Amino acid sequence: MPILNNMLNQEATLDRVFHALADPSRRAMVDRLTRGPASVSELAEPFDMTLAAVVQHLRVLEDSGVVRSEKVGRVRTCRIEPAALTSAEQWITKRKALWGRRLDRLAEVLAERNKK
Amino acid sequence: MPILNNMLNQEATLDRVFHALADPSRRAMVDRLTRGPASVSELAEPFDMTLAAVVQHLRVLEDSGVVRSEKVGRVRTCRIEPAALTSAEQWITKRKALWGRRLDRLAEVLAERNKK
Repeated sequence: MPILNNMLNQEATLDRVFHALADPSRRAMVDRLTRGPASVSELAEPFDMTLAAVVQHLRVLEDSGVVRSEKVGRVRTCRIEPAALTSAEQWITKRKALWGRRLDRLAEVLAERNKK
Repeated sequence: MPILNNMLNQEATLDRVFHALADPSRRAMVDRLTRGPASVSELAEPFDMTLAAVVQHLRVLEDSGVVRSEKVGRVRTCRIEPAALTSAEQWITKRKALWGRRLDRLAEVLAERNKK
């Protein structure tokens, strides 16, 4: 059932992306990475937390696909991956659009009723 | 410090909205409500879970501000509140735009370099 599998994958991706964004430290890391790639220690610098805690947050961000990292020599460089953010953005945008259309239809029905 | 308080409130709102959307059952409930208001039992109908579990999910959605409900007589009716979704949508859209601008600047720098 490739269509069902695809839907379940999309749901799992949305779970992970929204979960990754539900923490202020992780959002601050995404913020930092929108200004350009950074090493793990650069990313950790502004935070009052252990490096282990930063690495833990990074793992959640990487699992969601919002961030990817690459190790060259001893330095791991992190980058943002905007495609993962797009799935979450589109999910919200679509629901708001559906709701907006529903209100438009409701307004039409009321206008029609007032004419009578 | 009203500005700082305001920022902390916004962060707390984003935490709650993203957390609310990080669950497939809660997203399905939002989906249902984009088609119009529903009672708690209508909302629970398609789910293979106890009413208590549905009420628990609803509480998370209400805490985030994405859903609000109103009890008239014995029936609690739930509606979507698109403003809460907008804060999460705008957070993502802004980061993607910042990242896009960064890539544009990078492309300009590379183009300038190739001219020399």
